[in-house]
Amino acid sequence: MTAIRYDVLGIGNAIVDVIARAEDDFLVAQGMHKGAMALIDEARAQSIYAAMGPAVESSGGSAANTIVGVASFGARAAFVGKVKDDKLGQIFAHDIRAARVAFDTKPASGGPSTARCYIMVTPDGERTMNTFLGAAQDLKPSDIDEGQVASAAVTYLEGYLWDPPRAKEAFVKAAAIAHKAGRRVALTLSDAFCVDRYRGEFLDLIRKGTVDIVFANERELHSLYETADFDTAVKALRGEAKLAVITRSEKGCVVVSKAAIETVAAEPVEQIVDVTGAGDLFAAGFLVGLARGKDHHTAARLGGLAAAEVIQHIGARPAVSLKAWAADSGLQV
Amino acid sequence: MTAIRYDVLGIGNAIVDVIARAEDDFLVAQGMHKGAMALIDEARAQSIYAAMGPAVESSGGSAANTIVGVASFGARAAFVGKVKDDKLGQIFAHDIRAARVAFDTKPASGGPSTARCYIMVTPDGERTMNTFLGAAQDLKPSDIDEGQVASAAVTYLEGYLWDPPRAKEAFVKAAAIAHKAGRRVALTLSDAFCVDRYRGEFLDLIRKGTVDIVFANERELHSLYETADFDTAVKALRGEAKLAVITRSEKGCVVVSKAAIETVAAEPVEQIVDVTGAGDLFAAGFLVGLARGKDHHTAARLGGLAAAEVIQHIGARPAVSLKAWAADSGLQV
Repeated sequence: MTAIRYDVLGIGNAIVDVIARAEDDFLVAQGMHKGAMALIDEARAQSIYAAMGPAVESSGGSAANTIVGVASFGARAAFVGKVKDDKLGQIFAHDIRAARVAFDTKPASGGPSTARCYIMVTPDGERTMNTFLGAAQDLKPSDIDEGQVASAAVTYLEGYLWDPPRAKEAFVKAAAIAHKAGRRVALTLSDAFCVDRYRGEFLDLIRKGTVDIVFANERELHSLYETADFDTAVKALRGEAKLAVITRSEKGCVVVSKAAIETVAAEPVEQIVDVTGAGDLFAAGFLVGLARGKDHHTAARLGGLAAAEVIQHIGARPAVSLKAWAADSGLQV
Repeated sequence: MTAIRYDVLGIGNAIVDVIARAEDDFLVAQGMHKGAMALIDEARAQSIYAAMGPAVESSGGSAANTIVGVASFGARAAFVGKVKDDKLGQIFAHDIRAARVAFDTKPASGGPSTARCYIMVTPDGERTMNTFLGAAQDLKPSDIDEGQVASAAVTYLEGYLWDPPRAKEAFVKAAAIAHKAGRRVALTLSDAFCVDRYRGEFLDLIRKGTVDIVFANERELHSLYETADFDTAVKALRGEAKLAVITRSEKGCVVVSKAAIETVAAEPVEQIVDVTGAGDLFAAGFLVGLARGKDHHTAARLGGLAAAEVIQHIGARPAVSLKAWAADSGLQV
C-alpha cells in the first residue's frame, strides 16, 4: 500500500485573481450577479478590465486557496491545476510553491493564457467574480498522477472543475484512484450557479459515493435541492452524503453526518474587508482537522478560524501562519 | 501662455511591485539593506523571487504612487514613465489610468521586460526593496512632451531617475520646459543610497535652482550633507533650497523655507502594516495642498494624512479616496 505523503491533494482551476474595489452601482451597470462567479470569454475579460478600477494581482483559484490554507496549518499539501507558461502562470506557480505546496502540473506552452478571475469587492466586503478560464480549460486526465493521488489522505476537488471540458474526467479518474487506495474524496459545490449548471451530475457524485465529504454554503445547498428551506435541504443531504459541512457565514456552520447534525458558531471578526476565499479557507481548516484526527466540532472550529483570518484582509489566501493563528485561539494542530 | 491642465505631472520609473512578507533573518541571509532600495539585475531578480514567499503584485514606482495619490485627492494628474508592452506593463498602464491619471508614454516593444520591485515587508512594517529596472531603463528625452509639461503647475521628479542612463536628460529637459513656462519643479531624493550615488548632481540641481521644491526623509537629508546631525543638515538645506520638506516618520515633518522652519506633527495611526509608499503619498498630499493654495502647514497635514492611509495596508497606493479620507479629518481639498 502507498504510504501517505500528503494530508490533502487539491485539484482545481489554477487562477490569478485581479482584485479591485467597486461600488454596487458598478455591478449593476456591468450586469453582474453580486456574490456569484460568472464565466467570461476573453473579449468580456478585456471589457471588464478596462472598466474596473486599479487592481492588485494575487494567486487564487478556489481549491488552490484551500490547499495553500492546508499548508499554512503546517499540513502536507499538493495541488494539480493548469497554467500557461506566461507571466501570470509563473506568478501562480511561484506563489503556490512558496507556500510549501507541491505543484508539478506541466504548464501549457501554447493556447490561451493563464486563467484570471476579475474580482469586484464592494464596500460590504462581498465579492463578485468573473472568470476567464484560459489555460485552466486544458486540464485533462493525463495531468493526474496515480502515485500522487494514492499517497494523499484526502483528494479535494472543486465543483468548478465541471466547467472546463475535460477536467471532470480528470476529477473522476482521481476519485477512482483515491478510493482504490483506500483514501477519501472531498468536493466543494463551489457556487450556486455552478450547482445550477451541473445539479444532476453533482447529486450523482454524492449518491454513488464518488465523494465522501461535501462542502457547500447555504445558497449552494438550496440550489442543489431546489428548495428555499434550509432544514429540508439539510435533511435531504443527510440522507445521501456520508459527511457534509454547510457554511452559513456569520451563523457559523452545520456538520451533517449519519451520527449527528452539529452546529458550530462562527469565530468573531473585527471587520469584514473581503470575503473572497472564506469558503476555501473553511475547507482548509476542516480538512486539516480531519487529517489530524480531530472531532467534527474541532475541525469545524479550525475551518471557522481560517475563514475569519482571510476575510479580514484583501485577497483569498492567508496573510499569517494559520498554525500560529489557530494556536492564538487555543487550538493546536 | 499655456493654460494649466494638470496640477501635478510626475516623471519616474514605471514599476510593478511584487510584495511579500519576510522575516528579518531573510534580509540578512539575502544580504539586503533593511529599509533601502537596491538595484538588481535580472539574474538576481530571479534568485530573489525564487527565495521569497507568496507575493501580491501591485502597480508601484515612487513618482507614480505620488501621482496616483494626487488623483485620489481629486486633483488633475499625469504621469510619464516607460513600461514594455507585456503583461506587467499592461497592468501598470491599467492601474494608473484607472486611477484617473493621464498616462501616454509609448511602451517599449522590445528590450527588457517591465520593471519590477521585489519588496520584503518585515513584521515591523518596514519595507526593503530590490528593483530590476528593465524597460524603465529606456526613458529618454523624446518621451517628454513639451506641451504637457508646460501645462502642469508642478512637474514632480524622482531622484531614482538618475539610475537609468538617459532618464536624467529627460528630467533636465522637463525642468527647463517647466521653468520656461513659469511652472515649478519638485524633486524627491528617493533613497539614502540613491543620494550617495548622485550627491554632487543632486546638490547641483538644488543650488542652480533646477528644482524649486525638495522632498527628503531624514536619512536622505543626512546622506545629502554627509552629517548625522539633523539641525546642521536642515540649516544647510535652508541655505540652498527655495522650499523643502523633511519627513521624519512618527515625528512628523519639517517644512523648510526662507521664511520659516515649521514642524508639523504626524497623523495618528492605529497599526503600521507596510510603510511602502509613505514618502510618496506624503509628497502627493503636500503638492495637492500647494496646488489648492493652502499654507505650508495645511499642505504638510494633507501629506501626513495621505501617508497615514497608505501605511495601514499592504501596497503603496491609497485603498480609499484621499479626498474623502482628508475630509473625515476635517480637511477639504
